[in-house]
Amino acid sequence: MKPYEGEMLLDLEQMKWDSAGLIPAVVQDVNGEVLMVAYMNREALAETLETGFATYYSRSRQTMWRKGESSGHRQRVLEVRVDCDLDCLVLKVEQMGGACHTGYYSCFYRVIKDGKIGVVEETVFDAETVYTK
Amino acid sequence: MKPYEGEMLLDLEQMKWDSAGLIPAVVQDVNGEVLMVAYMNREALAETLETGFATYYSRSRQTMWRKGESSGHRQRVLEVRVDCDLDCLVLKVEQMGGACHTGYYSCFYRVIKDGKIGVVEETVFDAETVYTK
Repeated sequence: MKPYEGEMLLDLEQMKWDSAGLIPAVVQDVNGEVLMVAYMNREALAETLETGFATYYSRSRQTMWRKGESSGHRQRVLEVRVDCDLDCLVLKVEQMGGACHTGYYSCFYRVIKDGKIGVVEETVFDAETVYTK
Repeated sequence: MKPYEGEMLLDLEQMKWDSAGLIPAVVQDVNGEVLMVAYMNREALAETLETGFATYYSRSRQTMWRKGESSGHRQRVLEVRVDCDLDCLVLKVEQMGGACHTGYYSCFYRVIKDGKIGVVEETVFDAETVYTK
């Protein structure tokens, strides 16, 4: 089956936004590493597609979140994938700096082992320096 | 920083379950391909860790969802990662068959291009045959 043909071609309006108008977005780098999961509203997705850089909606701050605006750790979006239920996205990105506000490259720097949660990565930047500029 | 040391060693009880007692889990295969996003409650996570095969909580059916129980398309769990906010998981799995109920290997078989959503993958099994056994 080839892309963009016949009945399989859908409009963005057919995506299933949740009751808060949001959709989760898994963010993955060019090597396949999962960096973070964030949320988008229609405006964030539109801005992401228009600018080519990831913009999310911050649920905690209740505002648009232009990733990297203060840290410089932007995400150039290479591809946006949509799932079978039209209620989830995967963004393939080129990550500048680190994705996580704690200084790690990925937010998923911990693993579960023997019933405990432990850190298995090294930080790639100093979060205190980057976020107090 | 080495894993499982000092203050960075957390208990599973410290994870941040949402108001419905759920947490999203990104599921990724050994090659880094994102297969699906599903949800877990405490029981699903405990069962996954105990059995080594992915169990989720189905929000639509409101019941435990032992992935592959009817289709045979089980997921052997190789690693479970936890994010900075303790409210999201990444499961690295060995996927048997295809992950998506529609017959695709991954649920993310569509991409957004030029404002439209189109299919860019081929199916790997016949969903009608597999799910009507």
